[in-house]
Amino acid sequence: MRPTAFSPAAGSPVLVLLETDADGAPAPRLADPAVPHLSVTDQGVTRGDGIFETALAVADGLGTLRMRKLGAHLGRLAASAAALQLAAPEAAAWEAAVALGLRAFTEANDVAPGDRLAVRLTVTRGPDAAPGAVPTPTAWALLSPAPAIQDEERQRGLRVLLLDRGIDSQAPERSPWLLTGAKTLSYAVNMAALRYARAHGADDVVFTSADGYLLEGPTSTVLIVRTGEDGVRRLLTPLRQKGILAGTSQAVIFAAAHADGWELGYGPLVPADLQGAEGVWLVSSVRGVLPVRAVDGVEIPVDHELTGMLQAHLDADGDPGRHVSGDPVPTAG
Amino acid sequence: MRPTAFSPAAGSPVLVLLETDADGAPAPRLADPAVPHLSVTDQGVTRGDGIFETALAVADGLGTLRMRKLGAHLGRLAASAAALQLAAPEAAAWEAAVALGLRAFTEANDVAPGDRLAVRLTVTRGPDAAPGAVPTPTAWALLSPAPAIQDEERQRGLRVLLLDRGIDSQAPERSPWLLTGAKTLSYAVNMAALRYARAHGADDVVFTSADGYLLEGPTSTVLIVRTGEDGVRRLLTPLRQKGILAGTSQAVIFAAAHADGWELGYGPLVPADLQGAEGVWLVSSVRGVLPVRAVDGVEIPVDHELTGMLQAHLDADGDPGRHVSGDPVPTAG
Repeated sequence: MRPTAFSPAAGSPVLVLLETDADGAPAPRLADPAVPHLSVTDQGVTRGDGIFETALAVADGLGTLRMRKLGAHLGRLAASAAALQLAAPEAAAWEAAVALGLRAFTEANDVAPGDRLAVRLTVTRGPDAAPGAVPTPTAWALLSPAPAIQDEERQRGLRVLLLDRGIDSQAPERSPWLLTGAKTLSYAVNMAALRYARAHGADDVVFTSADGYLLEGPTSTVLIVRTGEDGVRRLLTPLRQKGILAGTSQAVIFAAAHADGWELGYGPLVPADLQGAEGVWLVSSVRGVLPVRAVDGVEIPVDHELTGMLQAHLDADGDPGRHVSGDPVPTAG
Repeated sequence: MRPTAFSPAAGSPVLVLLETDADGAPAPRLADPAVPHLSVTDQGVTRGDGIFETALAVADGLGTLRMRKLGAHLGRLAASAAALQLAAPEAAAWEAAVALGLRAFTEANDVAPGDRLAVRLTVTRGPDAAPGAVPTPTAWALLSPAPAIQDEERQRGLRVLLLDRGIDSQAPERSPWLLTGAKTLSYAVNMAALRYARAHGADDVVFTSADGYLLEGPTSTVLIVRTGEDGVRRLLTPLRQKGILAGTSQAVIFAAAHADGWELGYGPLVPADLQGAEGVWLVSSVRGVLPVRAVDGVEIPVDHELTGMLQAHLDADGDPGRHVSGDPVPTAG
């Protein structure tokens, strides 16, 4: 017996629970995000044991909402699930859930071109099961109205601190249980790092490895533009093999920049590479491309033209191609 | 308006929500653990952003349930809350909640001397708040019937793997955002390490630091008995300053052993110290004192007499005194 269908209110987030029918087939269901849906024994909360993706949906010129980088997000979610040995829903179930959520939002709201929704996909290991039984994962999609790109924040730029994530760059390859390539729910350290930065006069963080390499932001990927000793200007990101989460936004931007004739590079990079750069950015799906204006209190150049170019590449939402894989892409001429 | 009081069923876990009344005073409330109580935006699940304690309540000879090491658990919970800048309930609110839960369990069940309950205290940063607003933490106590000590597991002993936690022993002092001294909900790596061990023929894990020191188990503290080059037999645990969670069970056992005339020691310890030991144990509140019988596939001695002594010290539930602090206790003669 299915519960009565829920209709979201205008302006409210839309929640879709990824339930299954009696035959195990996907049966996504709209539910009220204002009431509780999770057990106090759900291992997502008791152990941070689960995974997530945060994506962006944007309304096109006809007011039709479409989730960006759908394949890249679902691919990374599947990789995270494999790293945690978590029986997450298949891509088709997520696609059906997101489609249901976008339709429900559209029916409840007067969607205008350019309107934005943050789309968060979450899977947990589920509530504690009886001894010996396998727990049933809990999965949902939450679609929340997102503010327009913050032009003021983008104009001003971010002050970042470099903070040691405590792990050396070789550890992830030796130690798969560290889960550095998976996007897990265990983000307490990421949140603590952001609180530390804000308490010390900064806006955001770039993590470094214990052996001194640049890694990523707590919720973003680092991009750098610099001209090398060979006189060639390149778009760079820290090497992904060294415990860095593959960035879906970085992949789309790199693919578009490559098509546009840019030389690309994947590091490894060190903090000194930030100081000599022509521009440094933190990129993520919802906040977009944000320039860094100071690193550990030292000002660095902010190039609004390059920011606009990178954001345009992200907005074009092209095929990330090979750039979404874990393999470094050769910097072919 | 308070909801109707909930009465737990016999044999079921008891859930107490730490709510507050209109004046902000603690108003713990019994609730049904079989229905959802958490929002899908609770930062405990979306970010692993919260803290917990797992304690043991045991029925005395009159069948009265009492939580062990109450002060030590509430002290550590407060320290974890401070590390996360989390406005957790005060000790008095927890004491009232646990007392309510124990009363409710006793009313619903025929409690016999020696009966055991696992008591889990959890605080999250709470559901997402409006921009600029401070979120209200979510807090609850869950009391679940615990099996008797597993004599079979204790007789057999644990096979453990030494797994690198990826962080060097000095990082926690330099980098408070790593939260290594706090018991956070972000346990995905701990769970992945246990899965890795079980997939490789072991039962449990002892983490090591990137620079080769023994740390702790994913859910336990390491104890070692060995005779030093000076001919003195000592009860040892890895030094707590190096990113190791202060063990409440270890503190109680150390205090009782010290009163009993044992020499104590706090490391630093390295894997070679396990091979030369007369006994190695993993200790935690609910599972108690479990001997290790193999490290990375190499058998080590199991001393059932020492296991019994350590478990008796834990069961005596004495005052941990200075042994619960972060300061190493001098190994006075």
